[in-house]
Amino acid sequence: MSLLQRFQQYISENHLFSSGDPLLLAVSGGIDSVVLCELCKQAGYSFIIAHCNFKLRGAESERDADFVQQLAQNYQVPFLKKEFDTAAFAEKNKLSIQEAARELRYSWFEEILKSENISALCPLPSALLTAHHLDDNIETMLMHFFRGTGIHGLRGMLPRQGHVVRPLLFARKQELKQFATANNLAWVEDSSNALDKYSRNYFRNQLIPLVQHIYPEAENNLVGNLRRFADMEQLYEQALALHKKKLLEFKGEEVHIPILKLQKSEPLHAIVYEIIKEVGFSAAQVEEVIKLLGSESGRYVQSATHRIIKNRRWLIIAPVKAEQSQTLVIDADEERIVFENGALALTQLKSTNVQLVNDPAIALIDKSTLQFPLLLRKWKKGDYFYPLGLKKKKKLARFFIDQKLSMTDKEKVWVLESNKKILWVVGQRIDDRFKITDSTKQVLRIQLTNNS
Amino acid sequence: MSLLQRFQQYISENHLFSSGDPLLLAVSGGIDSVVLCELCKQAGYSFIIAHCNFKLRGAESERDADFVQQLAQNYQVPFLKKEFDTAAFAEKNKLSIQEAARELRYSWFEEILKSENISALCPLPSALLTAHHLDDNIETMLMHFFRGTGIHGLRGMLPRQGHVVRPLLFARKQELKQFATANNLAWVEDSSNALDKYSRNYFRNQLIPLVQHIYPEAENNLVGNLRRFADMEQLYEQALALHKKKLLEFKGEEVHIPILKLQKSEPLHAIVYEIIKEVGFSAAQVEEVIKLLGSESGRYVQSATHRIIKNRRWLIIAPVKAEQSQTLVIDADEERIVFENGALALTQLKSTNVQLVNDPAIALIDKSTLQFPLLLRKWKKGDYFYPLGLKKKKKLARFFIDQKLSMTDKEKVWVLESNKKILWVVGQRIDDRFKITDSTKQVLRIQLTNNS
Repeated sequence: MSLLQRFQQYISENHLFSSGDPLLLAVSGGIDSVVLCELCKQAGYSFIIAHCNFKLRGAESERDADFVQQLAQNYQVPFLKKEFDTAAFAEKNKLSIQEAARELRYSWFEEILKSENISALCPLPSALLTAHHLDDNIETMLMHFFRGTGIHGLRGMLPRQGHVVRPLLFARKQELKQFATANNLAWVEDSSNALDKYSRNYFRNQLIPLVQHIYPEAENNLVGNLRRFADMEQLYEQALALHKKKLLEFKGEEVHIPILKLQKSEPLHAIVYEIIKEVGFSAAQVEEVIKLLGSESGRYVQSATHRIIKNRRWLIIAPVKAEQSQTLVIDADEERIVFENGALALTQLKSTNVQLVNDPAIALIDKSTLQFPLLLRKWKKGDYFYPLGLKKKKKLARFFIDQKLSMTDKEKVWVLESNKKILWVVGQRIDDRFKITDSTKQVLRIQLTNNS
Repeated sequence: MSLLQRFQQYISENHLFSSGDPLLLAVSGGIDSVVLCELCKQAGYSFIIAHCNFKLRGAESERDADFVQQLAQNYQVPFLKKEFDTAAFAEKNKLSIQEAARELRYSWFEEILKSENISALCPLPSALLTAHHLDDNIETMLMHFFRGTGIHGLRGMLPRQGHVVRPLLFARKQELKQFATANNLAWVEDSSNALDKYSRNYFRNQLIPLVQHIYPEAENNLVGNLRRFADMEQLYEQALALHKKKLLEFKGEEVHIPILKLQKSEPLHAIVYEIIKEVGFSAAQVEEVIKLLGSESGRYVQSATHRIIKNRRWLIIAPVKAEQSQTLVIDADEERIVFENGALALTQLKSTNVQLVNDPAIALIDKSTLQFPLLLRKWKKGDYFYPLGLKKKKKLARFFIDQKLSMTDKEKVWVLESNKKILWVVGQRIDDRFKITDSTKQVLRIQLTNNS
């Protein structure tokens, strides 16, 4: 089969696009993208050529831009180009030149795919085609492998990821060269030896030949790996989806995970990782989250956007912005709960054993007045209670003014409530309705230990 | 934590064995196995030392055997050794020296684990311990990776596989060296540079340092890979088990797979591979089996022990010995079926369109006499039919004698039956009860094409 036929077969087998779809081709002017243009032409696809000038190689950059413009003219297809001050963008955003170029490139392509202006030229392209080939993918796999990876890195690039389509991933570099020669194609050479290119070249020119001393078939073996690893990823994802279905309970903005069920799930490390990575946690935090399973209620691990909070028999994943409304549940048998300000220790006593103390960090509550579970939460506007010693209710906001609390102190106040009544403004004053009396039999003693 | 503590932790976390279990230690006398002995001693385990003398390195082999014997004496533990003529065994069984040594070694160890004689010395050991460490496992993973592998090769060795336990897999080579030095241990050096050792050394001394030019953390990254890949394998196996449960129907010695369901299963290639590899098929045969899904009934792919046969809407995996009893099902709408001797083409005709022919390769049957499905199978002892033109039944064995069939011809004869009556001794004679008559309306014409 010719390269053209295999190109068309690969596109149809992988459902990359249909013959009528307008395409956007990312063309640097190098041999790979020049071959991609010619194949699209020969296959009869309609396409636009887009070229990025990263302004990193002086006159060479201009030469490439002119070359690609001429190419588009020869094919009589629309041509788009954009110049970037890549170095400045990299510095401003603290990126490597390669990362900066990638980000600039793909965000411009995304812009084109959505752009209304294009439609004056031709139909809006439905996919962005890049000229990555099989040798690129072997190198990608090797680089991921030695940088450390899971299944997603191992299987390299896929023929379709979102809008980005890579219809040359089936072909070896050598085959593209032969096609270019056979079709008398002209292309430009990139003299760049920027870091990313350099490590690719190192793998290509140093590492693979070294391995071939021992396994002459190494390159073909790696090609086989890519196919197997893509299958492996599918099975991995299937099993993972089942675990997630069993474990995750979606409650508004929060996700609740039953700890007992999670602990029984195997392999725990991978399952935890796959769940938490979606909300900004890193692989390094997996161990912390696993430790959380056995720790006190109220402890949490945090990412830039989310908290994972241990709350009794549940792990709760909640957006950080919802922190204000965070509520901890305290069941009747709870002995200790950790929250933002410190920890509460709960003890049940016979009233005969109780010594009255005058310490705002200790609350003594008539247990018969309580309805479990209790809720521990930040105070909010509108909250009121019956301060101990008063027979009428008072807004907390008012109470804080009377107590001369500072603004920042006020912000930190938590309350404990039972059946929607506040029984303790934690560390400040209990509610009169919950105090112990002569007829009290069982006492709940709650002691606050502040964070030191 | 000291190496000893980590050793004990690794054993307990992975449930490798309990402190009272008697152990069999495979000891070459090299630094790794010497450290393993000392760790087992310090941890208070009871063990036997076993040493293989492969007689491959002349005087050095004897030196090693003596050294290990002395080691056992120092530890006052039972010592077992065995000498092998490895070179002869390799030649006889067409194995490489390394493969031969591995087979001899593990089959002797298995023998010891089951042996009654040992119990005179001490309790029967419950596990065989080898001294493979983390660097060995990195090399194993790298070798598999470049030879081409799936998930099972990728995750390297496991701490327990059957009776074989590898309690040093957590430790780097460097740590074993430090332990050996700190404990004043003596060991012997192996000057062998046999092929397997050579490729390991090549990876250790050439490839990893090369990669470290680019990724200085490469070794640690590979250690991380090993842990992630073991998790990945578990998820892979979970998903696979579900697919198998859905797809495989066990019928006696056969496994039946509904083709429609299989075709809808993703990823098809991996699922087919994992099903067929268990019955002796190679990865290279996966494509053939996938082709089988769309081919004619009766086609098959074969391994040393099994056949996978396409039979209408089913793939049937059957042991090759069951071949004689192979039965192909022919439904009313079947137009062509392939079997051992060739193919049958089935056509339905109005009786008015039928031309009588005198060709034993063509059967003309009164369709109203048939009950579908028909069965196509080899003839067997006890079979009888009513040969066309005779009004009484005849045993096939007798019929073949009358027809002067040779022994080998007889063995190849197949019959076609309807409702347990033979309607055609294929290629020989039809049954009188199924012939077309004046009152026949619909005719089934069956034509045999022999394998050329």
